Amino acid sequence: MQTAWCLTASCPDKPGIVARVSGFIADHGGTIVEASYHSDQVTGWFFMRHEIEPQTLPIGMEDFVSQFEAIAVEFGMQWQLNDSAQPKRVVLMASRESHCLADLLHRQHSGDMNFTVPCVISNHESLREMVEWFGVPFVHMPVSPDTRAEDLGRTVALFDEYRADVVVLARYMQILPPEACRQWFGRVINIHHSFLPSFAGARPYHQAYDRGVKLIGSTCHYVTDVLDAGPIIEQDTVRVSHRDTVQRLVRMGRDIEKNTLARGLRYHLEDRVLIHGNKTIIFD
Amino acid sequence: MQTAWCLTASCPDKPGIVARVSGFIADHGGTIVEASYHSDQVTGWFFMRHEIEPQTLPIGMEDFVSQFEAIAVEFGMQWQLNDSAQPKRVVLMASRESHCLADLLHRQHSGDMNFTVPCVISNHESLREMVEWFGVPFVHMPVSPDTRAEDLGRTVALFDEYRADVVVLARYMQILPPEACRQWFGRVINIHHSFLPSFAGARPYHQAYDRGVKLIGSTCHYVTDVLDAGPIIEQDTVRVSHRDTVQRLVRMGRDIEKNTLARGLRYHLEDRVLIHGNKTIIFD
Amino acid sequence: MQTAWCLTASCPDKPGIVARVSGFIADHGGTIVEASYHSDQVTGWFFMRHEIEPQTLPIGMEDFVSQFEAIAVEFGMQWQLNDSAQPKRVVLMASRESHCLADLLHRQHSGDMNFTVPCVISNHESLREMVEWFGVPFVHMPVSPDTRAEDLGRTVALFDEYRADVVVLARYMQILPPEACRQWFGRVINIHHSFLPSFAGARPYHQAYDRGVKLIGSTCHYVTDVLDAGPIIEQDTVRVSHRDTVQRLVRMGRDIEKNTLARGLRYHLEDRVLIHGNKTIIFD
Amino acid sequence: MQTAWCLTASCPDKPGIVARVSGFIADHGGTIVEASYHSDQVTGWFFMRHEIEPQTLPIGMEDFVSQFEAIAVEFGMQWQLNDSAQPKRVVLMASRESHCLADLLHRQHSGDMNFTVPCVISNHESLREMVEWFGVPFVHMPVSPDTRAEDLGRTVALFDEYRADVVVLARYMQILPPEACRQWFGRVINIHHSFLPSFAGARPYHQAYDRGVKLIGSTCHYVTDVLDAGPIIEQDTVRVSHRDTVQRLVRMGRDIEKNTLARGLRYHLEDRVLIHGNKTIIFD
Repeated sequence: MQTAWCLTASCPDKPGIVARVSGFIADHGGTIVEASYHSDQVTGWFFMRHEIEPQTLPIGMEDFVSQFEAIAVEFGMQWQLNDSAQPKRVVLMASRESHCLADLLHRQHSGDMNFTVPCVISNHESLREMVEWFGVPFVHMPVSPDTRAEDLGRTVALFDEYRADVVVLARYMQILPPEACRQWFGRVINIHHSFLPSFAGARPYHQAYDRGVKLIGSTCHYVTDVLDAGPIIEQDTVRVSHRDTVQRLVRMGRDIEKNTLARGLRYHLEDRVLIHGNKTIIFD
Repeated sequence: MQTAWCLTASCPDKPGIVARVSGFIADHGGTIVEASYHSDQVTGWFFMRHEIEPQTLPIGMEDFVSQFEAIAVEFGMQWQLNDSAQPKRVVLMASRESHCLADLLHRQHSGDMNFTVPCVISNHESLREMVEWFGVPFVHMPVSPDTRAEDLGRTVALFDEYRADVVVLARYMQILPPEACRQWFGRVINIHHSFLPSFAGARPYHQAYDRGVKLIGSTCHYVTDVLDAGPIIEQDTVRVSHRDTVQRLVRMGRDIEKNTLARGLRYHLEDRVLIHGNKTIIFD
Repeated sequence: MQTAWCLTASCPDKPGIVARVSGFIADHGGTIVEASYHSDQVTGWFFMRHEIEPQTLPIGMEDFVSQFEAIAVEFGMQWQLNDSAQPKRVVLMASRESHCLADLLHRQHSGDMNFTVPCVISNHESLREMVEWFGVPFVHMPVSPDTRAEDLGRTVALFDEYRADVVVLARYMQILPPEACRQWFGRVINIHHSFLPSFAGARPYHQAYDRGVKLIGSTCHYVTDVLDAGPIIEQDTVRVSHRDTVQRLVRMGRDIEKNTLARGLRYHLEDRVLIHGNKTIIFD
Repeated sequence: MQTAWCLTASCPDKPGIVARVSGFIADHGGTIVEASYHSDQVTGWFFMRHEIEPQTLPIGMEDFVSQFEAIAVEFGMQWQLNDSAQPKRVVLMASRESHCLADLLHRQHSGDMNFTVPCVISNHESLREMVEWFGVPFVHMPVSPDTRAEDLGRTVALFDEYRADVVVLARYMQILPPEACRQWFGRVINIHHSFLPSFAGARPYHQAYDRGVKLIGSTCHYVTDVLDAGPIIEQDTVRVSHRDTVQRLVRMGRDIEKNTLARGLRYHLEDRVLIHGNKTIIFD
């Protein structure tokens, strides 16, 4: 995989943004591998993403950043420049269910996805052996009903300690403290085992079974301090029938959960997700 | 299309039901074209559907019914016997949106689906010309805010007048009176333009847009006196993106609405739907 | 629907194209509603599409064209500028099956899609009544085995006579002459009732049934002089099972045929399709 | 998971089969958990599957078999009775790609699927470490171009040695000898990385890329001595676009490959697949 610089930006829309940014890159002789733009007609906001080949540029990242800053200021941009040669550090969290965690660890291990795992945090011991086989530190952080606040506080403190770029709740069954959700907004990704907004909260497959839906779903979203209500990154559904018991829904759901989470995380890792209010732009 | 008798039944589950019913048919030399069974392990209820070739039976429908009644009583069955040679009478209702209505009328007209349309009822005049081209009586029943109860009462009275077997709300934008919903339970089919239970009620595409979901859906269900909460017959979803405005969601939704409604209605017309509490068994 | 100018172009890729084109639009103060770019890394070719609000430009189309020509020459572009205020003229062709034709006529009639229909051409009489109800001229052009070449020659001559921008074979069961396919390349759209390249040619549902596939499909593609081998615009599949006879496959297939054709045609009408060799770029 | 006996049978269709079989079970007081029937109208063949609770029967498996044999003879049935308490022995084969193998091993290990793995056979060494972590013997059987026939002969001999009930080619990149395909017909399952019959043979994602299809697929099928032409168990597709390079197709394909293979294998393990000529009945 060749490395690329990924430049993402958003700002109030007005004529000339693309001309200015692509002109800046062209003036340096930079080759654009992929370019995506979106203009939101309702909010009047503009979004863009460029993948640039760094070898085609005569300047380093520091110079690029300082020169681009002038454009960013001119248009009032929020922006980021990431180098894909620096894979993101992903702290994975899980409880007892192993399918999402095993899937992500295997993808990382086999080179299917490009990230590093500084550690896996779990409130149970049961997944330690699997995690350690992958050569990843396993941190057991129990959470007990009586000391939940302190336990979760200590858990969340690990995000900084392990220098996480992003945290993935890979079927982690605890609710993070609201202040942590706010502090880490846009950097904590959850997989919820329903097609949100239906069946938020506990036991979504039981809720789906009771309602008699004909498709079940899964939702990958950013965590906020409102449960299962954050910006949605990716969703999927699969057909079920009256023959499917709750146990079968749980089993069928695992397959879409792990794929939905992997797709959502990949978008995030490749800087394809721009958050706008409670929604996302996905430049896939 | 060859005609068939369709026998559907449900009862408390116990050993010997299939043996008894299939033995009864076999003893008369009847050929079973299609047989489906379902045993609900949670509620202990049993469901079945047989399609029988009537020419292979030495007895007529009346004799079949009176003889089968003994078995039905023995097992405490709710049951039905329908002859596909008698297409069901479907009263269609619509407001201004034409896509579902046009689709069903075309399917009926071209022989894609087997039913008759005694009339189309609408609270607007705009679809008259199209309906009358199909040779179907168009009944304009305006509903005004001030006289809603009386207007809808007169509207609902037409179901009996036109001897409806089933009523289809093909994007009919009025809510039927609760007592009509109860009286016609299991015989009024609605298409809702969201993946229920998400986005019940008004303007579901606007709700979906605001929530930023990555798939939109449609739901075909039986109408009850709780809005958009009746037993679900069929659902479908389609992928959308940040590029899709509300107007585009509305447009993309039309395609799954009409197909979801057509599939759900077909199941109903072919006696493939058995209602159980607030859920359905679909013997497709 | 607001009108827009749609500018599409393709050329050998090199740095600076986007900067140049978007700079040109920005210099005139033009507002870009939607912009899409694609750089094909394998062939080194570049593709783009802009939707521009014409009211924001101080110049008319003629001036825009003559000024843009300089850029086009500089980069070796093939390009087009279309005004959505001039809906394309679509000649529809069908044989006996009505579902695709009825669907497109209804979409046009109800405003779901933006085009005009100068005429429907059919080698049978059976769809005349339906077509004429929509106020569209119906031209019966029989094709007999003995005089096929002349018959089809006369048929194809109508494309010019009715000043077609695009021709849609909405389940038209004759093969157009090779020279017509070449002359009209990129302007004749077919719906094939299989997931190509599987089951090209005659009776694809029978082929699918015999092979025992678990999904059936449909393919919307540009017609070339090699049967069912032209550039694919859109495809879809639907799940089937051992219970589905050929007749049921045919029936289930109709629903994806008409939606696949409608989506493919819409892409074409909105200038979202760029042909590259035997493949398409779809800026949806 | 409760254990069940699974009785599958097929025979020429005639009235009375269901009555006879269900009567036999009912006479012994047996509880049927799940019953499925299919009558193929084209070939006049009948198929059935029963899941029976063994605790509800007063007789053991041996007696059941000998008594049922009379019915089987009467109707000319091919039939099987399997006890889910005896999980099938699945020999897994792979080459270098790990995603399908890792997925199946994880499913087995975590209890998601019910089978045992006597060994994994590979023509490469690269997956040994992963396999052995799961506590499964890894057998390296290199296949060299010069000694292919002997190498594959020795490889195939392992199926018996390890008493395989079923062999799964989880992206095993060698073609088994024709005589082995015939001897093991119905017991060797392959995952092919295309939507067959399109793109059989080598490098299907390259073929798909070159053809410009808008969906890619995967096919789980029984192996026969004609390459990629055996009875299809399960298939799936996923949408792709002009933005997807061959490398991206390969990557997106992995996700449907592993899920399609897992679903197909599950059907086989639960005796839900009945082979009929070159097609399958799937009682899901």
